Amino acid sequence: MAIPVETFFLAPDGQGTLQARIQQMVAEGILSGRFRRGEKLPSSRRLAHHLGVSRITVTLAYTELLANDYLSARGRSGYYVSENAPEPPAFDAPRRGEDQVDWTHAIGQRFTGAVGVSRPKDWARYRYPFIYGQADPQLFDHANWRLCAVQALGVRDFAALTRDYYDQDDPDLIEFIVRHTLPRRGIIAKPDEILITLGAQNALWLAAQVLLTQRRVAAVENPCYPGLRDILQQSRCHMVPVPVDQNGLDPDALPDESDVIFTTPSHQCPTSSTMPLDRRRVLLDRAREMEALVVEDDYEFEMSFLKPPLPALKSLDTEGRVIYVGSFSKSLFPGLRLGYLVGSAPFIREARALRASVLRHPPGHIQRTAAYFLSLGHYDSLIRRMSKALHQRRRVMEDALARHGLEIAGRGAHGGSSVWMRAPEGVNTEVLAERLRARDVLIEPGAPFFSEAPAPRNFYRLGYSSIPVERIDEGIARLAQELAALG
Amino acid sequence: MAIPVETFFLAPDGQGTLQARIQQMVAEGILSGRFRRGEKLPSSRRLAHHLGVSRITVTLAYTELLANDYLSARGRSGYYVSENAPEPPAFDAPRRGEDQVDWTHAIGQRFTGAVGVSRPKDWARYRYPFIYGQADPQLFDHANWRLCAVQALGVRDFAALTRDYYDQDDPDLIEFIVRHTLPRRGIIAKPDEILITLGAQNALWLAAQVLLTQRRVAAVENPCYPGLRDILQQSRCHMVPVPVDQNGLDPDALPDESDVIFTTPSHQCPTSSTMPLDRRRVLLDRAREMEALVVEDDYEFEMSFLKPPLPALKSLDTEGRVIYVGSFSKSLFPGLRLGYLVGSAPFIREARALRASVLRHPPGHIQRTAAYFLSLGHYDSLIRRMSKALHQRRRVMEDALARHGLEIAGRGAHGGSSVWMRAPEGVNTEVLAERLRARDVLIEPGAPFFSEAPAPRNFYRLGYSSIPVERIDEGIARLAQELAALG
Repeated sequence: MAIPVETFFLAPDGQGTLQARIQQMVAEGILSGRFRRGEKLPSSRRLAHHLGVSRITVTLAYTELLANDYLSARGRSGYYVSENAPEPPAFDAPRRGEDQVDWTHAIGQRFTGAVGVSRPKDWARYRYPFIYGQADPQLFDHANWRLCAVQALGVRDFAALTRDYYDQDDPDLIEFIVRHTLPRRGIIAKPDEILITLGAQNALWLAAQVLLTQRRVAAVENPCYPGLRDILQQSRCHMVPVPVDQNGLDPDALPDESDVIFTTPSHQCPTSSTMPLDRRRVLLDRAREMEALVVEDDYEFEMSFLKPPLPALKSLDTEGRVIYVGSFSKSLFPGLRLGYLVGSAPFIREARALRASVLRHPPGHIQRTAAYFLSLGHYDSLIRRMSKALHQRRRVMEDALARHGLEIAGRGAHGGSSVWMRAPEGVNTEVLAERLRARDVLIEPGAPFFSEAPAPRNFYRLGYSSIPVERIDEGIARLAQELAALG
Repeated sequence: MAIPVETFFLAPDGQGTLQARIQQMVAEGILSGRFRRGEKLPSSRRLAHHLGVSRITVTLAYTELLANDYLSARGRSGYYVSENAPEPPAFDAPRRGEDQVDWTHAIGQRFTGAVGVSRPKDWARYRYPFIYGQADPQLFDHANWRLCAVQALGVRDFAALTRDYYDQDDPDLIEFIVRHTLPRRGIIAKPDEILITLGAQNALWLAAQVLLTQRRVAAVENPCYPGLRDILQQSRCHMVPVPVDQNGLDPDALPDESDVIFTTPSHQCPTSSTMPLDRRRVLLDRAREMEALVVEDDYEFEMSFLKPPLPALKSLDTEGRVIYVGSFSKSLFPGLRLGYLVGSAPFIREARALRASVLRHPPGHIQRTAAYFLSLGHYDSLIRRMSKALHQRRRVMEDALARHGLEIAGRGAHGGSSVWMRAPEGVNTEVLAERLRARDVLIEPGAPFFSEAPAPRNFYRLGYSSIPVERIDEGIARLAQELAALG
């Protein structure tokens, strides 16, 4: 590979002769690892022109670097970084001086420190990964996604893709959601009641920012998705955890002063329980009484392989009280980052303005690719394939858990992609997870899902969206062994 | 096209017999425009199974709909939405009741109402679009971008793309930025000092959120990019406008209590002026004295076709005081949404945590596609092609403006893609723009760029990134005519 001439940059405040500075610039590039062994340098003519110096100065610098074995010459073809050039130090790149900023003071607002679900970056290398929410490459429909992406990159679509889309979304994708996706949840919506977001996380964040202030009360399920608590903390609202049971969020436990209720009725996260139809009605009545809004994260409704999904809360809402969060990321693949908000037009307007300020809009190409993938029916096939696989895994999971006498704390009556587990009192599932990791098994300790401190330590989640069915049994056996050893 | 059976959804609180409710569901789908003429309905067997009703109920409903000419039958191939079915009303889709929420109260924070640069959605249909920041499809390297996108969708890359990337970025893209992009600006940075963002807008937003609070002072250029003022308003900081002159931001005019200084030294937005090297040094000295940070938006440095770009402020910064904002969106295409932040590791850590909460991460596929496009050298060729075209357009612009005696208020000595113009006192460029629109010419009125109220009304911007060179002359002639008519 040739090193482009534009990469060379003579520091304006450099010391010494021009030749020395050029030598230093090249040597530093090699020492810092920017230029690598075997890479070709620009000709002396080009570099001289680029730097605005005479050609002889560059030639002399190159000759010196050749003598020091930083560079090597290959006949008439030019100069290369020498195979004997010094290796860049593995520990640190050279720096231009020490950081003089007191970052403890300079940082006005802190965002680090949120507790997340722990998952090693190299999870895919573990043999028994009972983790949640990662795509299974065996199930994804590669070939067709690729075809759709190529189609979306076609000249015909180009104008749509390169345009700054910040006050609207891809009309094809919006139309598909209106006509095909939402009707499956019983929801009728108009285009100005929909906003495309960068995944469900982004949708929840936007909703929280628009609806909450320091003076407002948000009711959240407990346990719940830790990312949501993180979002609500940013809005500085008053957050009230509300216990969930086998039927999800309990409306009677909602505080009277709730302004916004965040709930996951399809599959409660992390317990997987589904809120029955009656309770959905009670929840809406309760919200009406309190004049509260409901943010419905319609989490994993597609993964209802045991029974058809119940109608979304939003479909029962006659008053515009429910804001609906949908996502294609979970069911397509997490790296896609595509979700949407459905709500009354005045709300969507504010969310759209905020989105424009924060990120303008989700990339046009991804919106159009998804629109093709959906409208050609590939999405439906993908869901069917995933449902079938998850159904099978779920059966094997239940058998294995029962055989080993492990206690299930929550499981989706409709489906889902994980089981919520309770270890015996006194077992710390962080310790359990660590011991299992040494045995090639990954589980998710449950403490980060809880609002209270100290959180219960004996819960954990077993995801089955990434583990091949034939490994489930052995994985659960190892889990049971380690649990027994700790008990 | 067949209507998927999952789209059918029997409202649980429906009135009347099952058959009537099914009829109503189909009719409503047609009336609302969800089901369209010629689309095929599911077989009665499939629909009955899906709804959990008997097949005869569905058949009776279909027969009734046939009689009413909502559906038509085509022999044994099934039922279709009739070509005579009622057209959905153009004005409004049927709704489930009126919105009962008092949105004036329910919305906790408002984000609409920001003043933006006006640009009609259908700008591409105008013959003389002197607008800014839209891609020119003639210049973009379609074929290679497509090849890179396809390569990035390959099976080998799949794991990288589908992964949840929220605590890191695409390593290939980061490496390219470290080794090739930043060195062109004289910047040495380590991977943990870089964060990929969803375009420059997102980078500025993240920086403002991390660095500013209600108690801090942000200095902004006046005039400046209106999107930045919008971002700063959200952070609720104290915003002080600082005048710019022919050399960009004037460091002597900075208020002593500045905490963060936002600047665009490469090409000031909107005046296009470039900050000379001496002034860059003065600005950094001033920031050091005040213990302020500098956010450098290295706006359009690639578009330096008249002289090579000056070193970035960040390259002169020995103290970690400068936070650098780079973007591939402007130079590749706006719809791409890809930018990055460079700053000290403690700052990047907070920005990364905030990004994770707001949107997780920019989509993996786009990061990888850009990494390929960059590393294969296509990006450099694109920049060269764009620079050449812009250089030519700029020459023609200057000629035409001089010939018609129009006053240039600011132009990039290094290049850029727009000229900042002053109309005679008393001319309202909003009115001018409206009159020109009727003559197929688009210009950008300048008032939204100013901080003060009332803003000067007689400035405007002429972008030349989207107008073909052969149309410039006639466009400027029309502009001159309308100006004369107003004067």
